[in-house]
Amino acid sequence: MPSPGDSRPDAVRTVIAGLAAQFGNRLVTSQAVRDQHGNTLTWVANQPPDAVVFPQSTEDAQDIVRLCAKHRVPVIPYGTGTSLEGQLNAPSGGISVDFRDMNRVLSVQAEDLTCVIEPGITRKALNEHLRDQGVFFPIDPGADASLGGMAATRASGTNAVRYGTMKDNVLALKVITAKGEVMQTARRAKKSASGYDLTRLIVGSEGTLGIITELTLKLTGIPEAIASGICPFPTVEAACNATILTIQAGIPVARIELLDALQVRASNSYSKLTLPETPMLFVEFHGTAEGVAEQSRRFGEIAAELGGGPFEWATKPEDRTRLWQARHDAYWAGRALRPGAMPLATDVCVPISRLAECVTETQRDIAEAGFLGPIAGHVGDGNFHVTLLVDMQDQAEIKKTEALLERLVERALAMDGTCTGEHGVGQGKMKYLLAEHGPEALAAMRAIKRALDPDNILNPGKIIPAM
Amino acid sequence: MPSPGDSRPDAVRTVIAGLAAQFGNRLVTSQAVRDQHGNTLTWVANQPPDAVVFPQSTEDAQDIVRLCAKHRVPVIPYGTGTSLEGQLNAPSGGISVDFRDMNRVLSVQAEDLTCVIEPGITRKALNEHLRDQGVFFPIDPGADASLGGMAATRASGTNAVRYGTMKDNVLALKVITAKGEVMQTARRAKKSASGYDLTRLIVGSEGTLGIITELTLKLTGIPEAIASGICPFPTVEAACNATILTIQAGIPVARIELLDALQVRASNSYSKLTLPETPMLFVEFHGTAEGVAEQSRRFGEIAAELGGGPFEWATKPEDRTRLWQARHDAYWAGRALRPGAMPLATDVCVPISRLAECVTETQRDIAEAGFLGPIAGHVGDGNFHVTLLVDMQDQAEIKKTEALLERLVERALAMDGTCTGEHGVGQGKMKYLLAEHGPEALAAMRAIKRALDPDNILNPGKIIPAM
Repeated sequence: MPSPGDSRPDAVRTVIAGLAAQFGNRLVTSQAVRDQHGNTLTWVANQPPDAVVFPQSTEDAQDIVRLCAKHRVPVIPYGTGTSLEGQLNAPSGGISVDFRDMNRVLSVQAEDLTCVIEPGITRKALNEHLRDQGVFFPIDPGADASLGGMAATRASGTNAVRYGTMKDNVLALKVITAKGEVMQTARRAKKSASGYDLTRLIVGSEGTLGIITELTLKLTGIPEAIASGICPFPTVEAACNATILTIQAGIPVARIELLDALQVRASNSYSKLTLPETPMLFVEFHGTAEGVAEQSRRFGEIAAELGGGPFEWATKPEDRTRLWQARHDAYWAGRALRPGAMPLATDVCVPISRLAECVTETQRDIAEAGFLGPIAGHVGDGNFHVTLLVDMQDQAEIKKTEALLERLVERALAMDGTCTGEHGVGQGKMKYLLAEHGPEALAAMRAIKRALDPDNILNPGKIIPAM
Repeated sequence: MPSPGDSRPDAVRTVIAGLAAQFGNRLVTSQAVRDQHGNTLTWVANQPPDAVVFPQSTEDAQDIVRLCAKHRVPVIPYGTGTSLEGQLNAPSGGISVDFRDMNRVLSVQAEDLTCVIEPGITRKALNEHLRDQGVFFPIDPGADASLGGMAATRASGTNAVRYGTMKDNVLALKVITAKGEVMQTARRAKKSASGYDLTRLIVGSEGTLGIITELTLKLTGIPEAIASGICPFPTVEAACNATILTIQAGIPVARIELLDALQVRASNSYSKLTLPETPMLFVEFHGTAEGVAEQSRRFGEIAAELGGGPFEWATKPEDRTRLWQARHDAYWAGRALRPGAMPLATDVCVPISRLAECVTETQRDIAEAGFLGPIAGHVGDGNFHVTLLVDMQDQAEIKKTEALLERLVERALAMDGTCTGEHGVGQGKMKYLLAEHGPEALAAMRAIKRALDPDNILNPGKIIPAM
């Protein structure tokens, strides 16, 4: 593919001048703001954009893309900057389009369980807005990310085992194409068999096929009752088998999270808890009061059959928060295992029947390499996170980290899994796409990228390796 | 787009000779078999292919596509021939690839709730195979369609309100590209954030982007208990409002079907029933014995609030079958309203808040046009079917039918709906794509089609209108 931008400083200057004329102080070129819009939450080195612009409407975004398209300058959409694989870097320079100011809820259709929003609103702000109407948006990736970013990266998280990922909860998107045209990918009907599924094509495309300026989301009724519980298991395998049986039995578990023994130890220390330091499952059930009680009872029976327990559960908010403390604090607890080290979070996803094996082999690999790497998993999806604590000043350690990450991905692929369940590809995982998808699928992705963005201005250098 | 095939009889002869040499009597050119592989279950006129070939493996299918690609002869994949919008016609001639002989279950992973199958197996045969393992594939479009065809047309049906459509239940596909290469769209992990969603792009593309030769499906545990019920309502609006409240309340209804008063009358007559001739909801609940009892009780309360009832429900199979008799026989009962007429089944889908209005206006329109057109709806999805009974010998009546269908689609689009919720586009609904999707989205679809099938050999003349 052509690699635009970095070789044409004149074009960048022209675009910046044009944007400054239109957007005034909503166009920022200070080094601090540019750095902040490069990639901050990852070990991938920061490659800041040439400028940052803050649109306030689809028309603004359209004007920005048109100007950039005219001069073949890259455009990188920006939400809250919480992506982990370098999705926001500007390896060829260009303009970061920050949707901070486009954060409105445009309409809510409670009867249809849908809403229409701007991309900059975060999931917490959206759910705050929706609460009075008895509905919520269930996807929870942990970070308080923007919905535009969540759609662009196909985010998922703890609730995905029951509610699916962003691919299942976005009904339609308004998208600025590479030419600067406005495209609506679908209508508000709950399903359609009309034409190619452009919505799902844009979801997960990380800004490389179009810039999202409006989302129509599927909502869910707030459950009458929520039960939360925790349950220790003798082994990772027992915890995974309990998860498999729970799902096979049709128990509609809303969240089912694994913390490995090291993560539990870290949480005990960080959060002043006294949990048994073995693998633990953290579960949550949504339904009626009777329903969540039945689900909890049945889960407890399955756990006991697998040697797990005692299973503690509760429905009062304060008790639920207490039970889940270790899970909520997992990230910070993990960091505290090695103060000063950089927490390098990565994820893979495998068929659930292979999960115990994949986690156990990964634990052994981490230990043998001499690292601390607590593991937390969305175990109902076969998806888990390793947080490696790395001294970024130590080149040998960085090399060992890279090798460990490669082995992790190879292990997941060998088990019919994927190099990322939810963090996305960005720059960090581009090198695995050929091994995961094969040359034919990668060629199809590249053909689609070329067809929809022939000048390669939309977030270039992400997902699809240049030829 | 280029319109290949029909202008090159030499190419077709060369391809047929090549296929005959390789496939022997699995290559058929008799007029009867060709006619049967054109479009049979629709009013769209039959345009038979030049020949029909029966592959037995992915390699066979690959050889077929390669030969056709070399000579730019169209390839039309064929499952069971139950599509309704001319998806199987050969407007430019070409080779129909019938997957009858590729009907094996290749593997079942009960722990992962997945299986890998060939495209020719039908949903009933698949569920027969799976039953002993306690799992099933929930998508039920009515017809005993092939899974390949169901994926290609993004089928859904009665269970979609709970289990989603084919887009939600296909994990990965093996696809022959336009060049005759084998592409795997994804791996068997339950979710992935790696690369463009080629699976969802192929699902619903009706054979225009690739030929499916293997499917990895998501399965569901067979529920412990099933409850089925029926409930009359004073109006379509009351029935739709009961549906909305049921879904908002989070009752995980597995099926919720509307029959309008005319359809109930037809069923009473055809199936010798004595149902009240008003709009009726047919519901089904899946879960534990306690769970389905609670769901049924709560649904009954909601129905009563809306003036519906009495709500009758049962859990024994024979009682459930008796209660649902009218729904099961709906198609044949509808036909019997006007013996000798052609039943012309069409569908649209709107946001559920607009469904009552859309159904009621459509009933009025049908009555004013002097037609009999019973209506049955997958009301939980906002999707409904009209079966118009048309005298195909009467040109004036056909003209009136066409106008009625156009008004139906216009009405659905005006309500933010789609021209088809589940039947697909084929030839019959191509003319509505511009109005539904707009020029930008249609241009994106066309660009994708060109990128993946530059010579337009994959089921040409379907979905995307030629330029």
